[in-house]
Amino acid sequence: MSTRGQFITLEGGEGSGKSTQLRRLATTLAERGLEVVTTREPGGSPGAEAIRDLLVKGDTDRWDAVTEALLHFAARRDHLRVTVRPALARGAWVVSDRYADSSLVYQGVGQGVDRGVLDTLFQIATDGLKPDLTLLLDVPVEIGLARAGARRGAEDRYERMGEALHRRLRDGFLAIAAAEPQRCVVIDAAGPIDDVAAAIRTAVDARFKLGAVR
Amino acid sequence: MSTRGQFITLEGGEGSGKSTQLRRLATTLAERGLEVVTTREPGGSPGAEAIRDLLVKGDTDRWDAVTEALLHFAARRDHLRVTVRPALARGAWVVSDRYADSSLVYQGVGQGVDRGVLDTLFQIATDGLKPDLTLLLDVPVEIGLARAGARRGAEDRYERMGEALHRRLRDGFLAIAAAEPQRCVVIDAAGPIDDVAAAIRTAVDARFKLGAVR
Repeated sequence: MSTRGQFITLEGGEGSGKSTQLRRLATTLAERGLEVVTTREPGGSPGAEAIRDLLVKGDTDRWDAVTEALLHFAARRDHLRVTVRPALARGAWVVSDRYADSSLVYQGVGQGVDRGVLDTLFQIATDGLKPDLTLLLDVPVEIGLARAGARRGAEDRYERMGEALHRRLRDGFLAIAAAEPQRCVVIDAAGPIDDVAAAIRTAVDARFKLGAVR
Repeated sequence: MSTRGQFITLEGGEGSGKSTQLRRLATTLAERGLEVVTTREPGGSPGAEAIRDLLVKGDTDRWDAVTEALLHFAARRDHLRVTVRPALARGAWVVSDRYADSSLVYQGVGQGVDRGVLDTLFQIATDGLKPDLTLLLDVPVEIGLARAGARRGAEDRYERMGEALHRRLRDGFLAIAAAEPQRCVVIDAAGPIDDVAAAIRTAVDARFKLGAVR
């Protein structure tokens, strides 16, 4: 397969089920004969994972918001260079747990970083690479936080930031999806895992005309 | 002392004697009755020192140039927020071993990052904070690398990058000093430590009218 692969991102708040659905989606794509690379942000390459450690551990006020944005975009650039772009170039499909929309929402909506600054950093760090499809896994905040609380561990810095904040984050994700309907599909992720996986499968097959051809 | 302190940076290539001269300058300023905070980049705050570890260790091609610039400016913002600005606000004088000129030279001249990108990152990360005085310690490249080689350790990633590169870096520093003569003073740092320290003392006393008043 010599054509470029497709870049799919999963976005959503804490406990929206992104990790679980990412594995399910990868299986679905592999069953359709595609090479699939699953990855995550922050992280997804050795360098970006080292930066991730600085972001997800420690006090919630460890970094100011702009510093945090700079670190996220540094990690993102390394992730693209080392993992995402080479995979897409050889024809693999890349499915990432979070990408740049998370910076717009967490650092922008959540922490008040100016949207113009984030757009500038996006251009500098990614050279404008947007996903071919973004699946926004949407759940009511109380459901998401309850799910996330059940697996709280060392990497819970974001989850400890308070429920009112998480409501604003959810609204931020929905606003992005509304502004870019050609790229984003909102998935109701409050239901059973199998139902969410089916909705994602339908969205992906429709977007890339996969179900019928292969 | 309620007036804002002064922000002095030392810049220069490997082996230009910045660390030694920073200690001498701090002693000089303290003898003039000033509170002095000495610091360094990358680093100078707990968060920035953690980012420093990502920058100074590992392979020379560990990061691409833009990623490296993003990491430097992330560290710089934390350094300013946690260390430099609070010290200046309480009237202390801050003397830093490297600051933003090093990014212009190492990532810009050395690694080819666009000057406009670096200027944009400077504005985002520092809100435009320039030093009150920058001392450029200038030595011929062969002398600097010979000095640096004598103390080569775990943090030698930059020093291993080749002599031709270091010549371009030296020219880059000199070009900045030529472009901003009101901020920068070039110090001939090839001679004995005492001579260089005397030249720095003279430059600082002249710039801040220190010798006569106190």
